[in-house]
Amino acid sequence: MNPCFEVFSQGEEIITGQTVDSNAAWLSQQAVQQGFTVTRHTAVGDRLDDLVSLLREIVGRADCCVSTGGLGPTSDDLTAAAVAKAFDKPLGFDGAAFAQMQRFFASRNRPMPEANRKQALLPEGAERLDNAWGTAPGFALHQGRCWFAFLPGVPSEMKPMFLEHVLPGWHRRFQLKPSTLVSLRTVGIGESDIQQRLTGIAIPEPVQLGFRASLNEVQTKLLFPHGYGTSAREELTGQVAGLLGDAVFAIDRTGSENGDLACVVDALMTAQSKTLAVVETISQGLLAGLCVGSTWLLESRFEQSRSRLAASLGVVIDADNPMASAETMALAVRQQSGADFVLVQLYAGDRTLLQDRNLGVIVHTLLLTENGCRPVTHTVAGSGKRKQYQAATLALDFLRRHLQNRF
Amino acid sequence: MNPCFEVFSQGEEIITGQTVDSNAAWLSQQAVQQGFTVTRHTAVGDRLDDLVSLLREIVGRADCCVSTGGLGPTSDDLTAAAVAKAFDKPLGFDGAAFAQMQRFFASRNRPMPEANRKQALLPEGAERLDNAWGTAPGFALHQGRCWFAFLPGVPSEMKPMFLEHVLPGWHRRFQLKPSTLVSLRTVGIGESDIQQRLTGIAIPEPVQLGFRASLNEVQTKLLFPHGYGTSAREELTGQVAGLLGDAVFAIDRTGSENGDLACVVDALMTAQSKTLAVVETISQGLLAGLCVGSTWLLESRFEQSRSRLAASLGVVIDADNPMASAETMALAVRQQSGADFVLVQLYAGDRTLLQDRNLGVIVHTLLLTENGCRPVTHTVAGSGKRKQYQAATLALDFLRRHLQNRF
Repeated sequence: MNPCFEVFSQGEEIITGQTVDSNAAWLSQQAVQQGFTVTRHTAVGDRLDDLVSLLREIVGRADCCVSTGGLGPTSDDLTAAAVAKAFDKPLGFDGAAFAQMQRFFASRNRPMPEANRKQALLPEGAERLDNAWGTAPGFALHQGRCWFAFLPGVPSEMKPMFLEHVLPGWHRRFQLKPSTLVSLRTVGIGESDIQQRLTGIAIPEPVQLGFRASLNEVQTKLLFPHGYGTSAREELTGQVAGLLGDAVFAIDRTGSENGDLACVVDALMTAQSKTLAVVETISQGLLAGLCVGSTWLLESRFEQSRSRLAASLGVVIDADNPMASAETMALAVRQQSGADFVLVQLYAGDRTLLQDRNLGVIVHTLLLTENGCRPVTHTVAGSGKRKQYQAATLALDFLRRHLQNRF
Repeated sequence: MNPCFEVFSQGEEIITGQTVDSNAAWLSQQAVQQGFTVTRHTAVGDRLDDLVSLLREIVGRADCCVSTGGLGPTSDDLTAAAVAKAFDKPLGFDGAAFAQMQRFFASRNRPMPEANRKQALLPEGAERLDNAWGTAPGFALHQGRCWFAFLPGVPSEMKPMFLEHVLPGWHRRFQLKPSTLVSLRTVGIGESDIQQRLTGIAIPEPVQLGFRASLNEVQTKLLFPHGYGTSAREELTGQVAGLLGDAVFAIDRTGSENGDLACVVDALMTAQSKTLAVVETISQGLLAGLCVGSTWLLESRFEQSRSRLAASLGVVIDADNPMASAETMALAVRQQSGADFVLVQLYAGDRTLLQDRNLGVIVHTLLLTENGCRPVTHTVAGSGKRKQYQAATLALDFLRRHLQNRF
């Protein structure tokens, strides 16, 4: 039996819907991978009685609970007071916490407001969790069967504090059996297509299969329980990757993530010392935008009008033949930019197609490399923004396939 | 006293963190605006006993609960069974629900799988909530003091079903006192600056002040309770807007939202029949990308190297004087593109500054209009992606200020 884990989120901004509680999802992913069974998420606002009743409920149900929020300096931040009341542990002044807060403000040349003093009050017997990323220290304590850790709600403080204090604490206190998550990341193939392809193999019962679709990619997730053999895991991963074929741009394993498609392309372009120039139409700057930070993207241009684009490149194109037009443009761009590769994206029809969510648009993408031209045609659909994202992602993925010799 | 509202989310994908529960936030916003007090969000996985205990807890605590998820055709979808067990209301076959599902599949020329039959089983006494956006009907029922509505978890079905069935149900069943939310949307001013400026006025006690910061904007939110006078509301809104000054790009009121900065600029450019050409450096295509769908953005170019950019425009620039360089480039772009306005963005220093999250970068943005040049200098900071977003947003906002004559 895995130990059982709950997430406790607090704050009016969560409960009134001003903030989506992404902390709860992040903490749950960590807990599942480390071998907990997550049983419940609960969020309440800044009312002392609600906090106290929830703490008393959880203590009878869970082996571990991580709470976020309510550690700030204002009167709405009631976590320590609620813990003190719920578990009869009076608050005491923690001198070390106070000294750290003083140093935090001193290093920023700011006076410490008097209100912050309250953040140094911790329930009796609690272990202080130092916060090197902000002012509010966290704390942890054991009550009944449950080990509680209380962290700030700001993700940029919560996540590093979790990794520094809570994760090692879990491994000291629980006999955990971490599972391994393998994510096969794909572009250019939908979730239902993937499910269809996977009917070809039997996923063994202890392995959990899941999917996660976002604007830019679909992830096929295999969660392998603790003790599942490495060779059996890699064999199944290889089978699934084989069925998904060239659409797989990366395979992530717990602790070894590749980043998104732009990161994968960045690594390939850098390793192969190639440079790129881009002509965008539907993606309207987004392809270049996704490659932020790269040094290999020499230039990108977007033009509203195809004839003006041709004129600016000093070429004459055949409006009825988009791939021939793309090739003419790519050759001109290569000559002017000196880039190793040129990606040109054109589309059939006029601009009114782009915004109509009921109409698909045919996108002609051409990649010019040292070996000549490689054309591809896709259909993008949905809202204008969705078409833009699809066009940018499919062009970038076309480059990725060339760099990986996967066609 | 407002009636009290809870959100109940179910599904393994929520509890294991594969999906962030944005439904809970959306439903809570609706509830707050309609005059409920939201007291708790709870999520559990697909285990019958957990669902049954949670339903029995909520029935003793809340006046209303909306549940999402667990209505699908598979064996993991246990909502109706859990309601039947928790409240002792045996499941019965709903012929009308079944007929609707048959029509849904027939209209798509697909056979209805046998598994879907289970979706037509509803607890005794429940009111069916028709689903015109998918297969799973929802249902509603009164138990104890609490009115429950059960909706699918897919947002594209949940939201329209909420608006069609739950919202009118709320107004039939509860004496609601809807509040009015006013959001002042700003660019170029941080949350702590805003708080500092607002110390100048007293926000009356019944008005709730809140903030929401995202990558592209900060929203200052004023929630006015039911019955707060319109003229008093507009007076306070005007006072706050006055203190925030030119940074305000839009003021949203419940039911009258303006869209983001790109939408506001789109409306202004369209109304004034102007066209734009852009030269991007730090924003690397993102400025053009944010204007997707516009017809007034004639062209955008990104160049990795400033000297190559000058060469491609056929101009000679003074590398030590960025604003003079920007003006030279803007004049060349206007001549070549024929655009009414030209935005040129340059930055001081070399590319290595962009990726170092500890270093700020000074961005020189120049807007060329019919009245000459207008320069502005900003500092952008944080990760490479954050600098990119800030540079794109600040340039777009600079254009917005010109269009609104707000400098």
